[in-house]
Amino acid sequence: MEFLVRAENRLPLDTPEEESLRLRKAERARAQELRDAGILERLWRVPGRNAWVGLFEVPDATTLHDALTSLPLFPWLDVSIEPLATHPQEL
Amino acid sequence: MEFLVRAENRLPLDTPEEESLRLRKAERARAQELRDAGILERLWRVPGRNAWVGLFEVPDATTLHDALTSLPLFPWLDVSIEPLATHPQEL
Amino acid sequence: MEFLVRAENRLPLDTPEEESLRLRKAERARAQELRDAGILERLWRVPGRNAWVGLFEVPDATTLHDALTSLPLFPWLDVSIEPLATHPQEL
Amino acid sequence: MEFLVRAENRLPLDTPEEESLRLRKAERARAQELRDAGILERLWRVPGRNAWVGLFEVPDATTLHDALTSLPLFPWLDVSIEPLATHPQEL
Amino acid sequence: MEFLVRAENRLPLDTPEEESLRLRKAERARAQELRDAGILERLWRVPGRNAWVGLFEVPDATTLHDALTSLPLFPWLDVSIEPLATHPQEL
Amino acid sequence: MEFLVRAENRLPLDTPEEESLRLRKAERARAQELRDAGILERLWRVPGRNAWVGLFEVPDATTLHDALTSLPLFPWLDVSIEPLATHPQEL
Amino acid sequence: MEFLVRAENRLPLDTPEEESLRLRKAERARAQELRDAGILERLWRVPGRNAWVGLFEVPDATTLHDALTSLPLFPWLDVSIEPLATHPQEL
Amino acid sequence: MEFLVRAENRLPLDTPEEESLRLRKAERARAQELRDAGILERLWRVPGRNAWVGLFEVPDATTLHDALTSLPLFPWLDVSIEPLATHPQEL
Amino acid sequence: MEFLVRAENRLPLDTPEEESLRLRKAERARAQELRDAGILERLWRVPGRNAWVGLFEVPDATTLHDALTSLPLFPWLDVSIEPLATHPQEL
Amino acid sequence: MEFLVRAENRLPLDTPEEESLRLRKAERARAQELRDAGILERLWRVPGRNAWVGLFEVPDATTLHDALTSLPLFPWLDVSIEPLATHPQEL
Repeated sequence: MEFLVRAENRLPLDTPEEESLRLRKAERARAQELRDAGILERLWRVPGRNAWVGLFEVPDATTLHDALTSLPLFPWLDVSIEPLATHPQEL
Repeated sequence: MEFLVRAENRLPLDTPEEESLRLRKAERARAQELRDAGILERLWRVPGRNAWVGLFEVPDATTLHDALTSLPLFPWLDVSIEPLATHPQEL
Repeated sequence: MEFLVRAENRLPLDTPEEESLRLRKAERARAQELRDAGILERLWRVPGRNAWVGLFEVPDATTLHDALTSLPLFPWLDVSIEPLATHPQEL
Repeated sequence: MEFLVRAENRLPLDTPEEESLRLRKAERARAQELRDAGILERLWRVPGRNAWVGLFEVPDATTLHDALTSLPLFPWLDVSIEPLATHPQEL
Repeated sequence: MEFLVRAENRLPLDTPEEESLRLRKAERARAQELRDAGILERLWRVPGRNAWVGLFEVPDATTLHDALTSLPLFPWLDVSIEPLATHPQEL
Repeated sequence: MEFLVRAENRLPLDTPEEESLRLRKAERARAQELRDAGILERLWRVPGRNAWVGLFEVPDATTLHDALTSLPLFPWLDVSIEPLATHPQEL
Repeated sequence: MEFLVRAENRLPLDTPEEESLRLRKAERARAQELRDAGILERLWRVPGRNAWVGLFEVPDATTLHDALTSLPLFPWLDVSIEPLATHPQEL
Repeated sequence: MEFLVRAENRLPLDTPEEESLRLRKAERARAQELRDAGILERLWRVPGRNAWVGLFEVPDATTLHDALTSLPLFPWLDVSIEPLATHPQEL
Repeated sequence: MEFLVRAENRLPLDTPEEESLRLRKAERARAQELRDAGILERLWRVPGRNAWVGLFEVPDATTLHDALTSLPLFPWLDVSIEPLATHPQEL
Repeated sequence: MEFLVRAENRLPLDTPEEESLRLRKAERARAQELRDAGILERLWRVPGRNAWVGLFEVPDATTLHDALTSLPLFPWLDVSIEPLATHPQEL
């Protein structure tokens, strides 16, 4: 099933540049793995904010939780999720 | 996976008594079928309100939507749902 | 650019069945036209509600407004929209 | 009576790893005692968050308060509770 | 245990005067019974509104629900409740 | 007149134990004085939170403000108040 | 003591013109009485809305409730109130 | 000074077509007068809604109220306003 | 025109006493100047909070902004404002 | 298309004066560039707050995001945006 996921990135502004770069690089790599696994379908930026909206395809909420906590930035993300049901017109 | 479901019953107060009884009886019967099918696990009343909280076990949000729309009172229910993930301590 | 659109369908429950069917059929037809035109990319049901979430691709908010008001059910829809920015990882 | 309890874990990210592990281990042990005592009936993770939802069975709100404050992580938990009434269909 | 209960009275303004008087008289009588039974401890008006706040003493939320639904005006009340725990300084 | 007062205690968790104990002891003593003066009528704990609800009887809001600011923990309390009107059934 | 009072006027738009005029005239007369009695100190319009903000001086919330319910339009007013405390700089 | 004004049009859907057209034509004419008078500076549609956002230039809130209530659709508008201050960079 | 202004004082609790006293003294002096200039008409305390409500009379929102930023505590104030329109009954 | 943008400036109060001045000067310069480029059409202060409202003209939300993140103060801005559609009366 699909979920819309919103995440605000609360990484403190005073995080050392080196650590911040390392985290963001690792985040990109993990996000790519989630794409390759067919879990992360789409990703958008929330305009004007350090935040994203993602469309995830997972078997259930537990798998979604595992995917999100696997992100290196997860400890600093403020996440909310919204389950989606298939629309009959999509079939 | 499991979902917490909240539903406020907005059936108008001026619904004819006969129609109201018929709907409630059909609602009970359909709820029993959902229990027998293992879809409706628990059901509570929201104290002080014409509303309920239910714990549902379904494969995904689409099946949950189908279960909820199968309730005879569905057109008058104001429903919100919350997906739940398995807690490792439950295993 | 893309927009997430949420719409709650407030068509009154006492709408004559014939009128309701006519509206829903016309809605499906217009939605199909928006898909064929590449404006409506994805459509989901909000589980437990008479509501949908859609992903739209349009040049700007004015075109989006025109697409939404072209839906036969528009007068009864309670719509909110959210603009999305391209994420660099999507490129 | 039963209560739904929601708790967001606000333990600071800069808590020393050793202290964090000690707290989480003690939390698990205390939660197990609450289960063994029949107070904690069910426990879920809120997907995407460092948070849980629990179903508690206690005589009253004072006992619930005592159970929650007995959790080693309580000082860092942001808790909200919701009392539930028995639904006649559950009997 | 004790509960704070808030209720907004939504009885329509066009309710026939006779029916309105009958309901309010029956409401007063039932409220008095709840006082005599030790269930309704205190009652206040919300200043400026057709609403009240009450302090109830009941064994649990199910008994509270039964007490509230026994009020003749219940179908028109918009009720919210808040469970209270005993404060150690009260003992 | 009476007021319902809610207070969340935001005393930082890293307050030295000695200072915290001193403050809480002084708080209890001052609360007792307010009871003895007939100002603090009832006190409850908000279950699951470091917070309380109190019922105060004072001549007006200025006296209530003075009573609340006389609490040693006042600088750390997040307070909201609700004025109550006498209900004719209480007379 | 003083209270800030906000009131939205929900008198239905289809109220007969004659009845509406009668109510507004009676409202003005009663408001003038409250001014003459020193209860209504100031009155403002909420710009863009059929609503007002008033500054009331009354002994307590019960008197305020009585003053507000004495307004002929009271049954259609959606009122919220805010108690004010004297500022030491005002003395 | 300038104000941002938001207005949701709540004209009932069952308003007779002739009356609706008359109102909208009168609304357009009055809006044009407000433009010509330099009161209405800009006007936008809220995408997806029967609503608008306007930028008004008026001496004060009372003049703004008079301008808004002069709109033929005013009785059905749900209006909220936001005062704006001059930014030094605009000078 | 008049504005209702609300301000929560967020001056940190660990501000040195000397600095805090200096700021509060300067605040009182500046407030007095605003009163003498006819800008600050009334001032109240929000009961139970380190906050105030003020009634200001200024030509426009820009002058109000300048008056508020002239307060020595402004950097720590969380301010919200509400424009008021003259009520015809006040004339 | 046009967007209304709101931004609260959360630059910490303890930012060194020199750094604060440098940032504000750079902010003004970048804002001027956005004006010269026709991207920033209007700018207002939110009265009473360290915040602004701006009217932006950009091709889409991605360009808006790039314009906002190009502001030197962006890391400390809490931004929300609102897309606007052309009103037929503006043409």
